[in-house]
Amino acid sequence: MYSVQHIIETALKEDIGPGDITTSNLMGPDVEGKGIILAKESLLIAGLSVAKQVFESLDPKVIFTPRYKDGDAVNPGDILAEVKGKVHVLLAGERTALNFLQHLSGIATHVRTYADILKDRNVRLVDTRKTTPGWLVLEKYAVRVGGAFNHRMGLYDGVLIKENHIAVCGGIKKAIERIQHNVSHLAKVEVEVSDMDGVREAVDAGADVIMLSHMTADEIREAVAFINRTAVVEASGGITKESLIPVADTGVDIISVGALTQTARWVGMTMQVSA
Amino acid sequence: MYSVQHIIETALKEDIGPGDITTSNLMGPDVEGKGIILAKESLLIAGLSVAKQVFESLDPKVIFTPRYKDGDAVNPGDILAEVKGKVHVLLAGERTALNFLQHLSGIATHVRTYADILKDRNVRLVDTRKTTPGWLVLEKYAVRVGGAFNHRMGLYDGVLIKENHIAVCGGIKKAIERIQHNVSHLAKVEVEVSDMDGVREAVDAGADVIMLSHMTADEIREAVAFINRTAVVEASGGITKESLIPVADTGVDIISVGALTQTARWVGMTMQVSA
Amino acid sequence: MYSVQHIIETALKEDIGPGDITTSNLMGPDVEGKGIILAKESLLIAGLSVAKQVFESLDPKVIFTPRYKDGDAVNPGDILAEVKGKVHVLLAGERTALNFLQHLSGIATHVRTYADILKDRNVRLVDTRKTTPGWLVLEKYAVRVGGAFNHRMGLYDGVLIKENHIAVCGGIKKAIERIQHNVSHLAKVEVEVSDMDGVREAVDAGADVIMLSHMTADEIREAVAFINRTAVVEASGGITKESLIPVADTGVDIISVGALTQTARWVGMTMQVSA
Amino acid sequence: MYSVQHIIETALKEDIGPGDITTSNLMGPDVEGKGIILAKESLLIAGLSVAKQVFESLDPKVIFTPRYKDGDAVNPGDILAEVKGKVHVLLAGERTALNFLQHLSGIATHVRTYADILKDRNVRLVDTRKTTPGWLVLEKYAVRVGGAFNHRMGLYDGVLIKENHIAVCGGIKKAIERIQHNVSHLAKVEVEVSDMDGVREAVDAGADVIMLSHMTADEIREAVAFINRTAVVEASGGITKESLIPVADTGVDIISVGALTQTARWVGMTMQVSA
Amino acid sequence: MYSVQHIIETALKEDIGPGDITTSNLMGPDVEGKGIILAKESLLIAGLSVAKQVFESLDPKVIFTPRYKDGDAVNPGDILAEVKGKVHVLLAGERTALNFLQHLSGIATHVRTYADILKDRNVRLVDTRKTTPGWLVLEKYAVRVGGAFNHRMGLYDGVLIKENHIAVCGGIKKAIERIQHNVSHLAKVEVEVSDMDGVREAVDAGADVIMLSHMTADEIREAVAFINRTAVVEASGGITKESLIPVADTGVDIISVGALTQTARWVGMTMQVSA
Amino acid sequence: MYSVQHIIETALKEDIGPGDITTSNLMGPDVEGKGIILAKESLLIAGLSVAKQVFESLDPKVIFTPRYKDGDAVNPGDILAEVKGKVHVLLAGERTALNFLQHLSGIATHVRTYADILKDRNVRLVDTRKTTPGWLVLEKYAVRVGGAFNHRMGLYDGVLIKENHIAVCGGIKKAIERIQHNVSHLAKVEVEVSDMDGVREAVDAGADVIMLSHMTADEIREAVAFINRTAVVEASGGITKESLIPVADTGVDIISVGALTQTARWVGMTMQVSA
Repeated sequence: MYSVQHIIETALKEDIGPGDITTSNLMGPDVEGKGIILAKESLLIAGLSVAKQVFESLDPKVIFTPRYKDGDAVNPGDILAEVKGKVHVLLAGERTALNFLQHLSGIATHVRTYADILKDRNVRLVDTRKTTPGWLVLEKYAVRVGGAFNHRMGLYDGVLIKENHIAVCGGIKKAIERIQHNVSHLAKVEVEVSDMDGVREAVDAGADVIMLSHMTADEIREAVAFINRTAVVEASGGITKESLIPVADTGVDIISVGALTQTARWVGMTMQVSA
Repeated sequence: MYSVQHIIETALKEDIGPGDITTSNLMGPDVEGKGIILAKESLLIAGLSVAKQVFESLDPKVIFTPRYKDGDAVNPGDILAEVKGKVHVLLAGERTALNFLQHLSGIATHVRTYADILKDRNVRLVDTRKTTPGWLVLEKYAVRVGGAFNHRMGLYDGVLIKENHIAVCGGIKKAIERIQHNVSHLAKVEVEVSDMDGVREAVDAGADVIMLSHMTADEIREAVAFINRTAVVEASGGITKESLIPVADTGVDIISVGALTQTARWVGMTMQVSA
Repeated sequence: MYSVQHIIETALKEDIGPGDITTSNLMGPDVEGKGIILAKESLLIAGLSVAKQVFESLDPKVIFTPRYKDGDAVNPGDILAEVKGKVHVLLAGERTALNFLQHLSGIATHVRTYADILKDRNVRLVDTRKTTPGWLVLEKYAVRVGGAFNHRMGLYDGVLIKENHIAVCGGIKKAIERIQHNVSHLAKVEVEVSDMDGVREAVDAGADVIMLSHMTADEIREAVAFINRTAVVEASGGITKESLIPVADTGVDIISVGALTQTARWVGMTMQVSA
Repeated sequence: MYSVQHIIETALKEDIGPGDITTSNLMGPDVEGKGIILAKESLLIAGLSVAKQVFESLDPKVIFTPRYKDGDAVNPGDILAEVKGKVHVLLAGERTALNFLQHLSGIATHVRTYADILKDRNVRLVDTRKTTPGWLVLEKYAVRVGGAFNHRMGLYDGVLIKENHIAVCGGIKKAIERIQHNVSHLAKVEVEVSDMDGVREAVDAGADVIMLSHMTADEIREAVAFINRTAVVEASGGITKESLIPVADTGVDIISVGALTQTARWVGMTMQVSA
Repeated sequence: MYSVQHIIETALKEDIGPGDITTSNLMGPDVEGKGIILAKESLLIAGLSVAKQVFESLDPKVIFTPRYKDGDAVNPGDILAEVKGKVHVLLAGERTALNFLQHLSGIATHVRTYADILKDRNVRLVDTRKTTPGWLVLEKYAVRVGGAFNHRMGLYDGVLIKENHIAVCGGIKKAIERIQHNVSHLAKVEVEVSDMDGVREAVDAGADVIMLSHMTADEIREAVAFINRTAVVEASGGITKESLIPVADTGVDIISVGALTQTARWVGMTMQVSA
Repeated sequence: MYSVQHIIETALKEDIGPGDITTSNLMGPDVEGKGIILAKESLLIAGLSVAKQVFESLDPKVIFTPRYKDGDAVNPGDILAEVKGKVHVLLAGERTALNFLQHLSGIATHVRTYADILKDRNVRLVDTRKTTPGWLVLEKYAVRVGGAFNHRMGLYDGVLIKENHIAVCGGIKKAIERIQHNVSHLAKVEVEVSDMDGVREAVDAGADVIMLSHMTADEIREAVAFINRTAVVEASGGITKESLIPVADTGVDIISVGALTQTARWVGMTMQVSA
């Protein structure tokens, strides 16, 4: 919870700085007003409580009333929320609140198009660590709103031995054994491999999870058969909306897709204020 | 400069937390290595000094050697930079450094496609305040790298009377006059209008800059003629790559485009590490 | 708003540190009391809301009731405000609250003596960036309370090409042209000159505002005539209370005076507490 | 030391914000230059190391070479220090460095005029807690540079039972006894009294230090005789430059003067920069 | 007060990080519940308001109802406090609140066993600066709850010339005289000595407090006689529970014991939560 | 790494505050000296790099030379490290550096006595979340130095369903299934049970790790046999040095002991400084 308040305050400070020179020079600090936040296109909402927190950070007396909840789908013209309070607060928070909502809803809306494709498959769609710096917690939340799952949050809460580790350690087996000795007994050990030799070495060393990196659907199918449920299997690397179904049909347990967070555009919203 | 260091530290903390449990359990803290950062597609670079600062924030002894500079265009396979230092530092900074570089270069690459369209027109392409919260300074920098200009940075360094202000203040003229009296003599006064009535009122009140919001090319042309160089003219609202030329040809001075920062996707890069 | 809370917390921490060893060793934490803040001389009030915030930062339950508002003139013995709450809170905040009020009211009272001199002239009296480090926002506020206006807030919200810039850039004209190309279309360009050659070069280059630095009233009059309303004219440098009228009568638009913030002494106040 | 760095960073942030729009738009970031800081009047220097720290906070590579040291007296035109580094760093730090130096040297210069008056008397001139919020450590340092001593730093490092405490506690004796029981054995107990009844009660209760508040020279003389070296005696309240000698000649040990920090004006300095 | 909130937030952040992955994945955020904090052994309570602040830092709506107050002695099974609120808040704060309570009550319980030994002696038992880094204010508070007193808080609020100072300064007398000249008139001067030569030099120089370091009861008795109430006498160094009485009976005023904070173990508590 | 620097700065600030009034009033800031840190008893070292960082935080120019490394055992009189630098820096850092070293080495020394008992058993000794608030990372490090392992770091990096969760969720099975659906595929699921019914339910639900809480050695043996390697088995709750071997001999995989961090006392060290 601290990190969300932190990014909100950072955002308000960088935009408002020592003060909103337009509004403060136009009207007294006590003019009351009302704002409505509207969708300008069809979208999946994520971030309503963040928008609320933006206004409340400026003034705890603002009344922010959501008309929907995160995960709801809305259409152009739908009112997502109402905000009542001092006009100078509404205008100071408007752009920042919208920037949060449009970015997070953009991700949720985008992720949903991937999740829908897989909705009848028994496979788990997950994100990656390719998140906007500073936004890790929020973007991973938007991914869940969109219907996918999170991979580990960061470097501290999951073991993933990647190609760079193996290159430095001198082999998959050596790396897995060293980790198994040192790491907490609550952590599973995942290892990234890119061919059948890697798969065999990983299975042999007792990896809990095997990531098949940039392999074709046929290669993945062969690996899944070889692993034979002795480890969880994750497909990763270069997977697009088009390849989701072929990859899912190989029998993998997990598909991770960087594009969930890397290629989402903002969705359109606006806020109208009246006195 | 403070704000860039701030977002870098925020990003490193959220990703690394109390420690990288994979690398720290795989190798000693003193193993030395080298990483190279590679482009995976054609792109315009932005953010090399941020990537450098990411690694130096973890360990001031890291040697980060850029092979290009911000604003250069590179092709798939080109090496953007080399990083030498402790392997655990390279791996702890890798993802965060790439996330900065891929996001910022993504914006610069995207903006360049807009700037190129306008390169023979005498019009200034500018961004908006629709930037990712926490990234205001960096994204506005990437916009400049891409060949466009910045509008005001935030609410504190430029006067822009928008429709919400006018609705609350009771009229364009009233708003402009109040601002002119109160604001610093170094600030120009910009006002947003959406039809010829607004244009006339703004000219009459002595606005320094007039923003024509969501008006058609024909309407803009009429406004430009009426204003007749008594104010700077900015076109804004819903402008796409396709409408850039028609709008530019109306004779406006400035075109502002939210899509510069709202619809950019990340560009592809990777980092390879060896001991 | 952040910066005011920041300086308040800094001030309370430096004065109270780990605790008020007099009060905490004299009485229990729950003794209730009342304080009144009194003027000890004639003064113009500035900073009542800051004083309120000081006490509320220590304990949100304190009731601070102002009897006047910022900008009011009071006489010795007048009660500016009442404060009710825990006695240990009243005594912990007393000195800090008074320090803010006495310093800010000191500036407002001082500025008013300058503003009064110019009250029948059509000229704008402004401050400079010579403000106490850490107090920029507050002192510029006190200047406004005293009846003057603010120049730019800092380096980020106004362009002022000073002699040091010109020395490095190689000429007024070169400097102005470079700025005009790079800076936001919402910024006016001001340039500092100290003789008629400078004035001519500035006018020629299209400066929006020309600062006449350390020039005599006669020189200023000549410059105003030459500029002939093609730019806003500001007189600056070494202007005293005595020279305000002669300078104003040259026809300049703006007079900036560093002494507004540099030579103000604190005004006298005290706080009386009873159980 | 932390608090000085803190106020320096606060000051730089509030003045520079997201960037110096004049200098950054006028020249490249790598232009090298030199600045000299000059006195514009006779003054006593205080704060050279703070000025150094201002520039080094912006860029550790700046070379700041003081020509004098704190406590030295200089004349108009004397060069206090040289600064070498990037021009954009020199210009970004210039105003903030001068603001620190001019304010602190202003206090030192002012205090020196009081200290000189007392230089042949066996009495200690001390300051009060009437310091600019945020500047406690620095202003108390400037007081020492000016030749006076510090009273307690804040509420945490010295016991001073004031009239407000006595009013709430129900009597001097009761207050002193309670404190003596509770407070650290390293603290002396000071009590504020305003007449001979108070003096008698304080002596009777065993106060270590007795502050005679707003008493005339004759009253002070009577109190000093009565106390007869059983306690340290401090005169305080409304003491001016004119009353220093009469009060000193009563035989008090300590004279505290709020005006040391409340009525000092800034002294004049300037900085000249060349490429 | 700031420092307690600071350590609480630090503690919550390090334990919770980006979120409690057990509770958040087990139940919705709105499940209400109740917790009771129980003693698992006989103990003296210290820290109830800290525990309250822990839960309120997570959610100001939590209702924390203490059943006892700091300084009360309780038995196994006694309920110290009740907490009502969202279950996810109760479980997120549980371990941190207990860690504070168990550590602080552990110190208070431990100190009480020392204080009880001295309860009929006219000697003051005090702590040292051997406190857990970050916990200075809290551990010194627990010492007072346990029935002892505090020595100085830190390096800033009391003068103690230790052996290392004397070694560098070249003698006790020289050191004391220098301090007396420079330090505030509210500070007593304490000096550490380890033999009768030191005692004589300290008395001669006019020390206010003399610390007898690592001396035997017989040596202390001799020193006390020699000092003869011209200074406060403190015994320090290697004093154990067993030597308390013999040292107290020498006639010293103060006994300082590092073991008060260095050898306390946590006392047992638990928290039971139900929906 | 951030959190260690954070607690160091917190500790230095609380001890030094606005300045060391003894040393600063005794000698000039430039006196050079040397300190040696000595063991006063047999101990296992932990925290040398923290002590180094303490001095370097005060002055990066201090030369701290360790004579041993963390994990080494030393005897009374052994020199752990030398520190060279300004005397005022050595004395300002002395107590804080020792407080870190004595506390951390105290834990390592204490943990080693537990680890030694189990050194020929094939069981992993781990800590708990019962760590001093603010010290989580450092105390868990000292545990590793002492020869034990860490359980999860906090609530964010490991799933542990405790009795309070089960009470609220309505059963072990229900809780495990809900977690398995929601949590990252890299997390193992641990559940706390206290009798054979719980064990059976946990095995049935597919728990990855089963914590046997407060069970006797005989009960644990029965549980181990029943679980039969389908899950990792951890014994926890009330385990003392005496019960380590009986519990280890039941065949459990993990033994967690709160006393590792709750009952360690500081070990004795001192620092001697000379000019």
